[in-house]
Amino acid sequence: MSDTNQKLAALRGAMSAVNADACLIPSSDPHLSEYLPAHWRARSHFSGFTGSAGTLVVGREKSALWTDGRYFIQAERQLRGSEIELMRMAQKGVPTVSAWLADLLQDGQTLALDGMVTAESTVRELRRAFGGKQVKILDADLAGPCWEGRPAVPATQCYVHEVCYAGLSAAEKLAAVRGELKKQNATALLVTRLDSAAWLTNLRAADIDYNPFALCFVFVTQSAAWLFIDASRLPGEALAMLRENGIEVRGYGEIRSWLAGYTGSETVLADAGSISHALWSELEKNPAFTIREGAEPIQALKGVKNPTEIENLKNSHRKDGVAMVRFQMQLEARMAAGERVTECDIAAMLRNVRFVQPACVGESFDTIAAYGPNAAMMHYSAQPATCAVLAPRGFLLVDSGAQYLDGTTDITRTYALGELTEEEKRWYTLVLKSHIDIARAVFMEGCTGGNLDILARSAVWQHGIDYRCGTGHGVGFLGGVHEGPQSLRTTNNVVFKPGMTVTDEPGIYEEGKVGIRIENELLCVKKMETEYGVFLGFEPFTYCPIDTTPVLVEMLTADELEWLNSYHALVLETLKPLLKPDEVEWLAAKCAPLG
Amino acid sequence: MSDTNQKLAALRGAMSAVNADACLIPSSDPHLSEYLPAHWRARSHFSGFTGSAGTLVVGREKSALWTDGRYFIQAERQLRGSEIELMRMAQKGVPTVSAWLADLLQDGQTLALDGMVTAESTVRELRRAFGGKQVKILDADLAGPCWEGRPAVPATQCYVHEVCYAGLSAAEKLAAVRGELKKQNATALLVTRLDSAAWLTNLRAADIDYNPFALCFVFVTQSAAWLFIDASRLPGEALAMLRENGIEVRGYGEIRSWLAGYTGSETVLADAGSISHALWSELEKNPAFTIREGAEPIQALKGVKNPTEIENLKNSHRKDGVAMVRFQMQLEARMAAGERVTECDIAAMLRNVRFVQPACVGESFDTIAAYGPNAAMMHYSAQPATCAVLAPRGFLLVDSGAQYLDGTTDITRTYALGELTEEEKRWYTLVLKSHIDIARAVFMEGCTGGNLDILARSAVWQHGIDYRCGTGHGVGFLGGVHEGPQSLRTTNNVVFKPGMTVTDEPGIYEEGKVGIRIENELLCVKKMETEYGVFLGFEPFTYCPIDTTPVLVEMLTADELEWLNSYHALVLETLKPLLKPDEVEWLAAKCAPLG
Repeated sequence: MSDTNQKLAALRGAMSAVNADACLIPSSDPHLSEYLPAHWRARSHFSGFTGSAGTLVVGREKSALWTDGRYFIQAERQLRGSEIELMRMAQKGVPTVSAWLADLLQDGQTLALDGMVTAESTVRELRRAFGGKQVKILDADLAGPCWEGRPAVPATQCYVHEVCYAGLSAAEKLAAVRGELKKQNATALLVTRLDSAAWLTNLRAADIDYNPFALCFVFVTQSAAWLFIDASRLPGEALAMLRENGIEVRGYGEIRSWLAGYTGSETVLADAGSISHALWSELEKNPAFTIREGAEPIQALKGVKNPTEIENLKNSHRKDGVAMVRFQMQLEARMAAGERVTECDIAAMLRNVRFVQPACVGESFDTIAAYGPNAAMMHYSAQPATCAVLAPRGFLLVDSGAQYLDGTTDITRTYALGELTEEEKRWYTLVLKSHIDIARAVFMEGCTGGNLDILARSAVWQHGIDYRCGTGHGVGFLGGVHEGPQSLRTTNNVVFKPGMTVTDEPGIYEEGKVGIRIENELLCVKKMETEYGVFLGFEPFTYCPIDTTPVLVEMLTADELEWLNSYHALVLETLKPLLKPDEVEWLAAKCAPLG
Repeated sequence: MSDTNQKLAALRGAMSAVNADACLIPSSDPHLSEYLPAHWRARSHFSGFTGSAGTLVVGREKSALWTDGRYFIQAERQLRGSEIELMRMAQKGVPTVSAWLADLLQDGQTLALDGMVTAESTVRELRRAFGGKQVKILDADLAGPCWEGRPAVPATQCYVHEVCYAGLSAAEKLAAVRGELKKQNATALLVTRLDSAAWLTNLRAADIDYNPFALCFVFVTQSAAWLFIDASRLPGEALAMLRENGIEVRGYGEIRSWLAGYTGSETVLADAGSISHALWSELEKNPAFTIREGAEPIQALKGVKNPTEIENLKNSHRKDGVAMVRFQMQLEARMAAGERVTECDIAAMLRNVRFVQPACVGESFDTIAAYGPNAAMMHYSAQPATCAVLAPRGFLLVDSGAQYLDGTTDITRTYALGELTEEEKRWYTLVLKSHIDIARAVFMEGCTGGNLDILARSAVWQHGIDYRCGTGHGVGFLGGVHEGPQSLRTTNNVVFKPGMTVTDEPGIYEEGKVGIRIENELLCVKKMETEYGVFLGFEPFTYCPIDTTPVLVEMLTADELEWLNSYHALVLETLKPLLKPDEVEWLAAKCAPLG
């Protein structure tokens, strides 16, 4: 029996004990995070699939795992030998989790799930899918007890994200939130998302790899605010800051009982997609609360960066650009010297040049360094035992980023290591066109990511190619590398506003052949106002040359070429004062205009 | 007192008589049509504004008219001197009709509206806007009784649209509708829209200018179908066809009482947006009916043209192309000879060349022929007394179309009559780019008009220009020139399917200066299927040269230029066999490749 099948057998034992016929294990924690502390990586533990997104469902006789296009290849490989069927999300004929469960479970049967890590909206969707069928949903953490060696709940030391970086004090942010609550006729807010809590409290920690967050909840009313966190994690200056800003501290584990015992009278603005089923139930049960369903307002508030944040962001990206230049120079030198360089070396090289930059506190995600066909796996993770050795031909894709006190970075470059096929050059140029077509877009106020996304895909669609992921996402500020609410996805309906930032990262992934992606971060800015209204656009604030050696110049339009050349002029001008003379000389060559 | 103010005074008299505090007059008939028989043009009669879209609201002391961007200039002019305030829809700070009424009307007051010509959805929206306020909605046609000389309800002779054109018999179409009803767990459908009824019954008439429809309703159950129309309008072959296809006939005026007296048991699929408040109320009151709210399925069925329709459509467009060529040759000859040609002459010239084409039964809308600054009025209608005389400079915009038994056409060309300014050439080239960017789009299955629209606007947005209308619309088949459900609009969420047709007609309208529009009809086709899925695109089936003299070739991308040249090759090849030698020679010059 495979290791995975053994774990599932144990889980089925726990299911039998409570008479459950199926068990749902999402990729989630009590904050419904995308990136999870190890303590909550139950899906990964029980399935063996380590990608960041996936849902495992275990029935009495069969089991299945759902994941999205980024992970099809990786999941295939990691599930091999286990009983688990891979469900490729959004592919033709593949049922959703809830449809599959609705098909599996019959009248009178029971589905177990951990209500603390399952969104209220997920439970609702399941109930909808079950329709008239009497399927019991049992709130029980079955995975925990049969998970040997389960990691502890993290509790790293907190620190204050100073106002010189954040731009606004926690008290100012609380005032803004209270204003939004009033607009929506609500008096209170339960903050469960870690990115929202971090922004609101100006507190950071290191509870989750790459995500500088502290596990906590916040409950805000018009006159008070409570932070639920283990007090032992708060140094004196954090306690003082919280006091000054009108925030009381309660224990992290107290949230359920505290909500149950609340005696005021509050209309709580609550979003079923960002509150767990368990906490939602507490709000519903306590007559002190009236639930007003609506979007959590912090996402929208922090989605627009304030002027201080924007200034800081540009500074962090200048430092990141310097690091990227030094990395590329070292890579070229080592390759030229015929040294053996592996994919795994890349991450270390990047850490070396980034961590010496002022105010750098770590990476913002696990570096993806993928050579040749490996890069076709969108979220490939090189392993020392199996990683590829770079050769002077084909492409190396490097997707990486860092956390600085003055901002979070996320950048992808695809480097030609030597000779390329005509097809590789054509693919690279198409990706570049897609990238530029978003970067130089001018659009009327009111446009959403859903409206803009096609501007990137259009160039690759012309050639029958698509990429199975969004075109770009929002990025936190000393926060998560994926933060909303804006994004460049066909389904996103958040209106772009000046001050929002987003990544621009179209790609081409040809299985078994190549992976190409070019990613900058863009700042939404006002471009002009005419008789027709206000027009917005983007300004790149990632400062790093884009490899021009693979570019088939004749495939670019004059406008695209002009964008590329002026981008490189900006990169050179921005980084020049921060580099040594030999580095400037190197950069000037990389930034030389094309065409 | 202005003529308009006098009419409003009479209307206020009628309002007082029933104690109404406001009266809503939409642009609508019992079928919620866009184009109205004169009998129902109450809004136009009482406001003096003759555009096709608008809503008049008359309060005790003030009145206002809402219209959209196509008509701002015309409405300003036509409302001048009256008390009516112009409300420019979708402009900043302009309230919606319902918000304005909610502000005007107080607790206990009454709003009168004619329930037979007001959509159920409009009444719901009003009720939502009134919120907790007790505002009574009175179903009463106040306009009718105080409308002197109101035209009669039209009742033109019907004819059968033969299956050789329509592709499917009424019985086959009924079967398709019944299949859709089953899918939605409904047993019956009330068809109120004239385009849907015409498609379903294969009957046509001439009740409405340019729209070959017969005023009628259809009620379809799983086993029967009733057509509500005055039987005197049906010639023997129409009666026979209806009988053969299982459709019974009832009087047009009987619909309300028939619904009230129905004794079966039906679950009626009903769309609050396409059924009048009055008929909806009948469905609600009669316990024989259970209403299942959902989209009327005929719109989606007829939105995808069948293979016979597509073949016919191409044929009608070949004939229309021949007519357009002859029109343009005549125009050029008359201009060259120094003849006096006015905007009004254009419509007559087009009728002359179109009406001699086989199976032509009329125009599909009132030709827009607008010279110079007049063309900035999007739906300008030249009047003999005031129309402009063409001069050998600037642009002439001609938007026109015809009804053929084998299809409906809609085409716009903008002709350079002589010298142009650099700005005019730039604007023209931008419009052409926008047009081509839609026409040559390749997109994945699943894309909607809302996704694609930005491909057209992107080129003009780059220059701070927008057009205050959609990019394109569906077209009927011997039907309305505007038919859905697909369209190229930011708000359209209908997925494009092969067989759908749509106009591609971006424009630039600079008030007081110029109006430029280029319009072809496009057929959605499958372009390719790759490992990523199915890719769709468009094929133009309007065959008429696009004026290339104003084109600034350097502003086109290589791909755009290639599209233009291959389009012209298609036009030449398609029309050549249908033209005389001198016409072929002329056309070959117009279709000569650029660049």
